[in-house]
Amino acid sequence: MPNQTDLMMLRNKLRDFATAREWDQFHSPKNLSMALMVEVAEMMEHFQWLTEAQSFDLAKQNKDAVSEELADILLYLVRLADKLEVDLLDAALLKLEKNAIKYPADRVRGSAKKYTEY
Amino acid sequence: MPNQTDLMMLRNKLRDFATAREWDQFHSPKNLSMALMVEVAEMMEHFQWLTEAQSFDLAKQNKDAVSEELADILLYLVRLADKLEVDLLDAALLKLEKNAIKYPADRVRGSAKKYTEY
Amino acid sequence: MPNQTDLMMLRNKLRDFATAREWDQFHSPKNLSMALMVEVAEMMEHFQWLTEAQSFDLAKQNKDAVSEELADILLYLVRLADKLEVDLLDAALLKLEKNAIKYPADRVRGSAKKYTEY
Amino acid sequence: MPNQTDLMMLRNKLRDFATAREWDQFHSPKNLSMALMVEVAEMMEHFQWLTEAQSFDLAKQNKDAVSEELADILLYLVRLADKLEVDLLDAALLKLEKNAIKYPADRVRGSAKKYTEY
Repeated sequence: MPNQTDLMMLRNKLRDFATAREWDQFHSPKNLSMALMVEVAEMMEHFQWLTEAQSFDLAKQNKDAVSEELADILLYLVRLADKLEVDLLDAALLKLEKNAIKYPADRVRGSAKKYTEY
Repeated sequence: MPNQTDLMMLRNKLRDFATAREWDQFHSPKNLSMALMVEVAEMMEHFQWLTEAQSFDLAKQNKDAVSEELADILLYLVRLADKLEVDLLDAALLKLEKNAIKYPADRVRGSAKKYTEY
Repeated sequence: MPNQTDLMMLRNKLRDFATAREWDQFHSPKNLSMALMVEVAEMMEHFQWLTEAQSFDLAKQNKDAVSEELADILLYLVRLADKLEVDLLDAALLKLEKNAIKYPADRVRGSAKKYTEY
Repeated sequence: MPNQTDLMMLRNKLRDFATAREWDQFHSPKNLSMALMVEVAEMMEHFQWLTEAQSFDLAKQNKDAVSEELADILLYLVRLADKLEVDLLDAALLKLEKNAIKYPADRVRGSAKKYTEY
């Protein structure tokens, strides 16, 4: 399927996966948001006692574990967006544009302050 | 760029965005995992008092807000994967395969029990 | 110590615990907030596929595991409040008063809408 | 009430608060765990771009906001424990004892490694 984006491809694979296992009954957006949160926490647990500098080295030591956790997060996110009927790619591109306006480079360079503080 | 996947395209846009604003200094994986968590919580807040059934209707009422929150989650996830040098699409496809083996359809149909309970 | 509240007692025990193990170096508020988040996610994981009704039965089946997770959350919260020099009990009592004003019983009875919607 | 601990006192105030507003219907453990998570994220958001050292100064600048967020976390935690019929203080004291055995001071001094790595 030449025109199918990878997010759409993941979305379809996840639909097939859930249907084959009769898991749609558990996949309310409420439940999926919780599952997504739990996966992000599993990722975050690696970093809790590390310094910021040490956190860059994480993937080198735990390449497989880290990749798998990032994958879990993406899969639940794609599934949640599907159930909420949101086009994830369109939404991301739109948000990038909004952010460019919200945080003009010449004004915010080098600062992490929230834009309302400018 | 015909061969560039959309996740790779988002990754590159995010690199340019951060570089132009000198924000790389804040983008340690430790910090990015926290920012990602905060965005997931903002999404989850919509559902906390809703029933599972009501949670399906969320996007209809709050289409723009919900889309934007899902976008924020994806953008931070792509950025985090980039800083950890993980190919998000490859990792997701690999995890889907692992899940198919971990949860064979004929064994788990209709049940949300963890696979070690089979 | 007759006047010592239980939150203060937990705070002191946690100070001794960390000092004896030279763990203060890891206990920045930033790190403690991440550890707290991870513990809440471990608790939340029990509920992600359960219905709200089923979630009431959780403690009956997993009494020890659930109690331990709630304990972990309280311990990290007390530790975080200590490092931020906040009196947890005073803050909670003050917030209860604020909430009573923010959500007058006669106006909000039976509704979970945010108060700005009234 | 001389024997009533402060956690028990908060628990009773929260029961009265919810009953007066007919909010028990929303307070399933599933929902309360989500609300708790959202409050922890609101706290964590303050730290996401700060260094660990900067995170110690947070309460000085934002004393009221930080106190209120810690209060919210405690209130939801007490409410959740109540609905799961767990005695929070007993659970915390028991966990402190377990931790002392799990992490003997002479073995773990100065290290944040998980105990199974010893």
